[in-house]
Amino acid sequence: MPIITLTTDFGLAGSYVAQIKGVMLAIDPAATLVDINHHIQPQNIRQGAIALAAAAKYFPPGTIHIAVVDPGVGTARRIVYAELGDQRFIAPDNGILSLVARDVPPRRLIALTPSEFWREPVSHTFHGRDIMAPVAAYLSLGLDPARLGEAIDTLEAITWPQPSREGDIITGEVLDIDSYGNVITNIREDLMDVAAPEHIEIRIAGHTIVGLSKTYGDASPGALIALIGSSGYLEIAEVAGNAARRLSAVVGDAITVTVAR
Amino acid sequence: MPIITLTTDFGLAGSYVAQIKGVMLAIDPAATLVDINHHIQPQNIRQGAIALAAAAKYFPPGTIHIAVVDPGVGTARRIVYAELGDQRFIAPDNGILSLVARDVPPRRLIALTPSEFWREPVSHTFHGRDIMAPVAAYLSLGLDPARLGEAIDTLEAITWPQPSREGDIITGEVLDIDSYGNVITNIREDLMDVAAPEHIEIRIAGHTIVGLSKTYGDASPGALIALIGSSGYLEIAEVAGNAARRLSAVVGDAITVTVAR
Amino acid sequence: MPIITLTTDFGLAGSYVAQIKGVMLAIDPAATLVDINHHIQPQNIRQGAIALAAAAKYFPPGTIHIAVVDPGVGTARRIVYAELGDQRFIAPDNGILSLVARDVPPRRLIALTPSEFWREPVSHTFHGRDIMAPVAAYLSLGLDPARLGEAIDTLEAITWPQPSREGDIITGEVLDIDSYGNVITNIREDLMDVAAPEHIEIRIAGHTIVGLSKTYGDASPGALIALIGSSGYLEIAEVAGNAARRLSAVVGDAITVTVAR
Repeated sequence: MPIITLTTDFGLAGSYVAQIKGVMLAIDPAATLVDINHHIQPQNIRQGAIALAAAAKYFPPGTIHIAVVDPGVGTARRIVYAELGDQRFIAPDNGILSLVARDVPPRRLIALTPSEFWREPVSHTFHGRDIMAPVAAYLSLGLDPARLGEAIDTLEAITWPQPSREGDIITGEVLDIDSYGNVITNIREDLMDVAAPEHIEIRIAGHTIVGLSKTYGDASPGALIALIGSSGYLEIAEVAGNAARRLSAVVGDAITVTVAR
Repeated sequence: MPIITLTTDFGLAGSYVAQIKGVMLAIDPAATLVDINHHIQPQNIRQGAIALAAAAKYFPPGTIHIAVVDPGVGTARRIVYAELGDQRFIAPDNGILSLVARDVPPRRLIALTPSEFWREPVSHTFHGRDIMAPVAAYLSLGLDPARLGEAIDTLEAITWPQPSREGDIITGEVLDIDSYGNVITNIREDLMDVAAPEHIEIRIAGHTIVGLSKTYGDASPGALIALIGSSGYLEIAEVAGNAARRLSAVVGDAITVTVAR
Repeated sequence: MPIITLTTDFGLAGSYVAQIKGVMLAIDPAATLVDINHHIQPQNIRQGAIALAAAAKYFPPGTIHIAVVDPGVGTARRIVYAELGDQRFIAPDNGILSLVARDVPPRRLIALTPSEFWREPVSHTFHGRDIMAPVAAYLSLGLDPARLGEAIDTLEAITWPQPSREGDIITGEVLDIDSYGNVITNIREDLMDVAAPEHIEIRIAGHTIVGLSKTYGDASPGALIALIGSSGYLEIAEVAGNAARRLSAVVGDAITVTVAR
């Protein structure tokens, strides 16, 4: 029961997503197609990488994830097939897989070369439809990935800001902002001394939050709180509100955590 | 052929919906997943209840509907499994099922308790992914709901404004506004004397509309009309326009109908 | 393995799409449902026609495409079943099929008449749910289209602007703008002398672009380029930017191409 997911910057107010789905269903009508996210900002590879890393690991082993945030479409950049952990990926080799690959090193990497599994003719501007979609559909039918191209050793990497800890002070940054306006940082739970959550002090955008809440409903509406979000990262939220708007927070903003005094 | 639907306030510009789908497909790869609505306003339980009530009844008997508008996630509020009419529901017990339950009284209610059907560890902030999704997927595989928790007698209710009729005058309010800007009221067709639709007078936001139209195309572009909408409720529309914008109408606005003189 | 697609102006912030899906799954739980586009502007039949023509041809033969941009719902306009090329369509006969039909003439046309395959009662305002959805689901189960109504000879047509060529000068217009802000014209590749792409001069909104690029990454960020897009039409793009915003381009704007000097 093959599953294929899609992560793109196409938006849903056009027909690009549907073209890709049509191509795949024409090859494998039994494929189960799942949208991860089509609202990645145009050409924002980092945001695509974050969405993919947040969602892909929940899918059953062997799921094929197509990621098309591809400003270099039609140029010399490679298209790769990657087995990362127990998941499979097809994407331009532009760093969009680098966040998944940071946590689960590649088991197998192949650079795609022209084959009978590509649509003909290949558009210079839509490899998602003409290369990645048909390749994914043939894989879902059981195609041996070895037939797709040549084995390679490494993926293109992009640098992900790592939080640093010096004594009791952890310095990190805003990694993502979710649809509620919750501000998600790059500071993982295990980097903080959560044995004493009441002693933690978080500073962001001129605000100081003391203590870690367990969940959003632990404080009154309007309260600015810090908590460990559902992906295991430190997160700033406004109860029944929008923290990002209140803090004017954007991706990359600095955040400081003092674990104890 | 199990079907599972989703109604949430997650939006589509993030990965929360995909995480839930991944969890379900990892348990039941053959489940058919259908999105009802992911654009409920954050924490707007009433709006979620309206979407669910409008759509759920059209699905085949036994369909499992997950509804995650859940401001109290991680607090003491219960999560329930409910059989309402011939449909099944999994949701926080915060009133989101109360509109469906008003029309089709519960046949079976269970308050979920921790079980092997939950993901481990359960995030304090994402029970949709860690409790509701896996439980729905196991149900779709045929799990006996009795294994999910303890039988209860009633659901949390929220009050829904009822229209009132005094002689020839019906007073109601705006229940919802659809994507066209059509203003949907809480006045059902059977409350009005539609045998004489030409004598009906509707007052809303300082405007008076006389008579009921059959459909949008019965009047000229720009005309403000009243009609019985596709869910059986009195609705105000602007032909080829947006009535809500023209009337500055919002949910809760008063509407008065005079059935005859 | 029946596939049914949906193209509508319903948006996703409501329950109309879900109602249609529920109706279809109640009849054929095994149907594969694919969204083409639900963000057509309200009542914009031309935009719906463009989305349908761009996407439908990629689906497997026999796919059933429902198109519901239907300002005349409930009036005398017909609902049609159409076989165009190897695809099948169900839509109001208001021109929404006219762009597909321009390229692949009809093989079979039927005007739907009331039958046991419609839902009862039929709402005056939602034929998508009460007529088109159940009819599509029964077709996916193998229903003979002859049972749906009466054969007809022609579809309603709407006029599509044709580019014209006089000597070396081609005059066309903007047909569509995609989610990246790429400006898609109605000038097909074969109308231009692409043997000498470096001699082509494109004029749009006071700008002149010389030469055809192969793909977006062929020029520097901010450059305004012209290229053949993935559907075979001349397209204006801003590298890593939004050409429509930069040019204030809207559908219908004039574009002039000088093929040689």
